[in-house]
Amino acid sequence: MTQDIRILIASKGNPQALAEGFRTELPGAAVFTDPAEAGAGPVPYVVAGKPDPGVIAAVPGVELILSLNAGIEHLLAPGAVPEGVEIARLVDPAMTEGMADWCLAVVLAWHRNLHLYRADTEWTRRSEVLSRDRVVTVLGAGALGGRVARLLAQIGFETRVWSRSGRAVEGAQSFAGPEGLVRATTGADAVVNLLPLTPETENLLDAALFGRMARGGFVASAGRGQHLVEADLLAALDSGQIGAAALDVFRAEPLPPGDPLWAHPGILVTPHVAAPTQAGSAVRIMAENIRRHRRGDPIPERVDRARGY
Amino acid sequence: MTQDIRILIASKGNPQALAEGFRTELPGAAVFTDPAEAGAGPVPYVVAGKPDPGVIAAVPGVELILSLNAGIEHLLAPGAVPEGVEIARLVDPAMTEGMADWCLAVVLAWHRNLHLYRADTEWTRRSEVLSRDRVVTVLGAGALGGRVARLLAQIGFETRVWSRSGRAVEGAQSFAGPEGLVRATTGADAVVNLLPLTPETENLLDAALFGRMARGGFVASAGRGQHLVEADLLAALDSGQIGAAALDVFRAEPLPPGDPLWAHPGILVTPHVAAPTQAGSAVRIMAENIRRHRRGDPIPERVDRARGY
Ligand SMILES: NC(=O)c1ccc[n+]([C@@H]2O[C@H](COP(=O)([O-])OP(=O)(O)OC[C@H]3O[C@@H](n4cnc5c(N)ncnc54)[C@H](OP(=O)(O)O)[C@@H]3O)[C@@H](O)[C@H]2O)c1
Ligand SMILES: NC(=O)c1ccc[n+]([C@@H]2O[C@H](COP(=O)([O-])OP(=O)(O)OC[C@H]3O[C@@H](n4cnc5c(N)ncnc54)[C@H](OP(=O)(O)O)[C@@H]3O)[C@@H](O)[C@H]2O)c1
Repeated sequence: MTQDIRILIASKGNPQALAEGFRTELPGAAVFTDPAEAGAGPVPYVVAGKPDPGVIAAVPGVELILSLNAGIEHLLAPGAVPEGVEIARLVDPAMTEGMADWCLAVVLAWHRNLHLYRADTEWTRRSEVLSRDRVVTVLGAGALGGRVARLLAQIGFETRVWSRSGRAVEGAQSFAGPEGLVRATTGADAVVNLLPLTPETENLLDAALFGRMARGGFVASAGRGQHLVEADLLAALDSGQIGAAALDVFRAEPLPPGDPLWAHPGILVTPHVAAPTQAGSAVRIMAENIRRHRRGDPIPERVDRARGY
Repeated sequence: MTQDIRILIASKGNPQALAEGFRTELPGAAVFTDPAEAGAGPVPYVVAGKPDPGVIAAVPGVELILSLNAGIEHLLAPGAVPEGVEIARLVDPAMTEGMADWCLAVVLAWHRNLHLYRADTEWTRRSEVLSRDRVVTVLGAGALGGRVARLLAQIGFETRVWSRSGRAVEGAQSFAGPEGLVRATTGADAVVNLLPLTPETENLLDAALFGRMARGGFVASAGRGQHLVEADLLAALDSGQIGAAALDVFRAEPLPPGDPLWAHPGILVTPHVAAPTQAGSAVRIMAENIRRHRRGDPIPERVDRARGY
């Protein structure tokens, strides 16, 4: 059944290893790492990292794009993927778990003042707050935000979660839509951003949102760099309205040396390591989506272009 | 019913506030903060912080000691509390939650290299490990260790828990007794100590235990300072066998300025703040234990002197 499958790997990060993975998962499939190798015949499946503009559009007979990332905003850029071609996001339990690890680590380290204690050289007891007495708001209730919110609630935080649809998350209070965002973030001690980048979510982490939070609160962002208005964050940190932040994503990556975000004592920068794609499990998931597509079954993590995610 | 209750508060930390709390919870009770005030009549209830030696033994007619702490090793010192007098430990959900917050914070901050990223001033991606690929062993499966182990397992860590009886904890693998300790700590990436201090558990965190762990592992201790052989920890850190440690408890508290534990870059010192007694909830729990004692009902958190905890 997998004999006549043709796949192009359009990724700059180790395409040969991915190709080997697909050859193992789908024996007999023809897997190319360069469009030139594929010749003129149709290539229905394209595994896409962040290919150069025009690469995907030039593939003959493309039917399904398998994203190597959970965020697919670059594949919705004009002309990137022809209309009518399906896009499958990557939703991988290994990625979800990595993201939860990162979010819980930065929230708890802030919550328990670890950074301050580490700098101490003598016995200075700070007044510690219980998780039950802190409100944490997760923006996004999807594959990633849902798990993070559920675990934050299990740990004991008063947890709120915001999404487009008001999706329910065990233990958390759900909010939806623009007014829901105001209510979800008002008085929040910490905000954790796990939204996809869309025209609606761009620049969402701004002065207005920071101003609604409890004074001295914490902001963590692992969505996309374009969610954050950096100047507003720096001003809120300097005024004391925000106490600290942890950022894993940036408008320009790598974040250039000398960027003010590096040096600010209130900001923890991590270099887009929150939830990297795990090649092994990713290939298995993408191969299963190819099998589904061949059988005519729906792809669970199909991107809705009108929604933008 | 609470009219003729007589209570002595034997605590150096804000005894007046505690006394007020008991007067509210047990209207009509006579509450003293100084043995002299109580006169010669019997005082069946003593609320005990860490009173000077001999204070409790001198109280006439004492029947039940209500500890302000979860750890009661000081109340089992020879002569501290007369034989036959019951001791109730403090088990308070607020304390349990605070301890879980601290343990999860230090384990996750280590797990995700936050300390290393904070020191970076340029983009350096470290290879991150998923929680499912790390073994965390919790020593103690009681009120505190049980919650910590359950949450670690929910987050995704391969969790082991060690106790005297082999008590079951949801999601974790249980071990018991001395051979169980060897199996529970062999290959562990992190060990979290939440044991009570007894003759059996003193000096348990030693070179032998560190040597069984995975190389470069992490040690967190919030039990008692006497559990840790400091010289062994420093040697294991310097050899690289242990990668990092977080300590909340010390043989001498406050930890003296200049102690080598302060300056070591691999050690995070927190000043016994993991799970402080919360006066409000503690008074309600102790008052309920007094009511139970008056009714002749068993005290759930009664200390077993033979076991030592
Ligand atoms: N830093 C990293 O290492 C890393 C790794 C992976 C992913 N990410 C980022 O994380 C993002 C989320 O991933 P995911 O897998 O959780 O996505 P997902 O499953 O599609 O979930 C997206 C969530 O955001 C909500 N949402 C979208 N637009 C919204 C709007 N306008 N208003 C309110 N809520 C909105 C959705 O609401 P509904 O539930 O109503 O649909 C959904 O709950 C990715 O897009 C990517 O940018 C970062
Ligand atoms: N740093 C802080 O802020 C802070 C705050 C509160 C408490 N603490 C410390 O935490 C300790 C634990 O508190 P807890 O409320 O969880 O106590 P607990 O409910 O009595 O639990 C003690 C656990 O240790 C196990 N244990 C005792 N002796 C053992 C031995 N010789 N071998 C193996 N396992 C043994 C017990 O086994 P079984 O289950 O079989 O009985 C039990 O699981 C306290 O004693 C105190 O020292 C520190």
